[in-house]
Amino acid sequence: MVEGVHFSSGHVEWTDLGWKAMAASQSDIAAMGCIPLYAVVTLGLRGDLPVDGVLEMYDGMLDACERSGGAIVGGDIVRSSELFVTVALEGTSGADGKILTRDSASPGQAIAVTGSLGCSGGGLRLRSEIGAHDPATASHLEDAHSRPSPRVEQGLALVQSGVLAAIDISDGLVDDLSKLCEASGVEAIVHADRVPADDFLRKAYPDDWLELALGGGEDYELLFTGPQRLMRAIEDRLDVPVSVIGEMVDGPAEVSVLDKDGNVLSVRRTGWDHFKLTRT
Amino acid sequence: MVEGVHFSSGHVEWTDLGWKAMAASQSDIAAMGCIPLYAVVTLGLRGDLPVDGVLEMYDGMLDACERSGGAIVGGDIVRSSELFVTVALEGTSGADGKILTRDSASPGQAIAVTGSLGCSGGGLRLRSEIGAHDPATASHLEDAHSRPSPRVEQGLALVQSGVLAAIDISDGLVDDLSKLCEASGVEAIVHADRVPADDFLRKAYPDDWLELALGGGEDYELLFTGPQRLMRAIEDRLDVPVSVIGEMVDGPAEVSVLDKDGNVLSVRRTGWDHFKLTRT
Repeated sequence: MVEGVHFSSGHVEWTDLGWKAMAASQSDIAAMGCIPLYAVVTLGLRGDLPVDGVLEMYDGMLDACERSGGAIVGGDIVRSSELFVTVALEGTSGADGKILTRDSASPGQAIAVTGSLGCSGGGLRLRSEIGAHDPATASHLEDAHSRPSPRVEQGLALVQSGVLAAIDISDGLVDDLSKLCEASGVEAIVHADRVPADDFLRKAYPDDWLELALGGGEDYELLFTGPQRLMRAIEDRLDVPVSVIGEMVDGPAEVSVLDKDGNVLSVRRTGWDHFKLTRT
Repeated sequence: MVEGVHFSSGHVEWTDLGWKAMAASQSDIAAMGCIPLYAVVTLGLRGDLPVDGVLEMYDGMLDACERSGGAIVGGDIVRSSELFVTVALEGTSGADGKILTRDSASPGQAIAVTGSLGCSGGGLRLRSEIGAHDPATASHLEDAHSRPSPRVEQGLALVQSGVLAAIDISDGLVDDLSKLCEASGVEAIVHADRVPADDFLRKAYPDDWLELALGGGEDYELLFTGPQRLMRAIEDRLDVPVSVIGEMVDGPAEVSVLDKDGNVLSVRRTGWDHFKLTRT
């Protein structure tokens, strides 16, 4: 995570910055159906940063480890004109060596996601709209953005349930699903009316909630595919909502989003491109 | 490694940058008597950097892995206004779980180093003195700075020989020895006339070679302590020169450097402090 790219110092709490840096890596481990073990943290620090802030950032990382697993075992500190935080996290299979991968989706499988989408993106947008939303909505969306919950237990349950293919939603549903399609060589059909978005998001952004849910990023929910017949058992097994949102088909390695009448929606690829200055 | 702190882009070859980023981590593994295994590489890249350069940097990292062990198994790329390269490297004990540590030095032990010191610092200084040295000297010192050789095999031989305490010389002999003293709670006496410096360095810097050997940094040789009686066997076993340069004694956790008459030399702590703008 790099200052000015992933966050603006002064606009983020130190503890939240630490939490998110660790959570993003934990979520990558979760998306493989694995368990976080050892983290190495490298900080690039400006000389004018407060030491207390850096300590609070570690507190945030440790909180994330306490919640989702893993331990900070080492790292390095270097001087840098821009603050950056690098977390390298090792995980291990908790299911006899079985893991989830991006390249094992196949035609005929259902596409599903955990939780609800778009709240993190809503929380980010809300920062420029102070006072425009009721406190409960603001708090809910802000928390979704600042304190995402990696789905470690759920990833493990998925791999134990026989699911093979998954990715975490860090760059946005359509963007991350596209990566799964490219790695697996299959096409994805997503039904927009089945994409889960909660009432806070729909109420705060009645016109844009679907766009946020499809492209907002940083939700850190799991996106996975598997046989239709497995989905009911998975819904029962996971302690978070599971929504079947579409299916994999033979076709070009891309994502098509359909409205409830079956018409293809034009979806902007809103995923994060590090080498553009803004989200497209 | 951060642009403007550890290197200036334009003044360093991309392959050398990759080699050094990997070698610095391999040297940390070597200093524990361990073997490099898996590396995760995170790059912060400016959008205007040439892709070919970045590929050459990976070539340099892969060359270093081929020489000293380890494999790049993953990583991340992010946008950054300053180039940075972060290598997280996992190693494993090659000696039935035995490792070298910083906190196991004790009074009465001899202090020894591998190889010769100061050439890397000489190579760095030489860059501002183009044409002032004969080509063979320039090439030798420049290579020492650009392509350091982590002492992986030697670290493993040390731990197998019964040595317990070691550190690699990345920040300079006196600075790194100070860390060993602080971790072990012992005092170090170093005899300046026993500090190994080769003829290239002595010839290029007749007045400053000792200062470079004591504080130059980035030599990536191993500094270790052990019983005097082990030292002869270690000299025979290692395929690089080993020099006994002093001894650990009861006393404050600091380093004293003596001249050949036993007088204490005033040694500037020339080690790298990331939060000062220049070497002190």
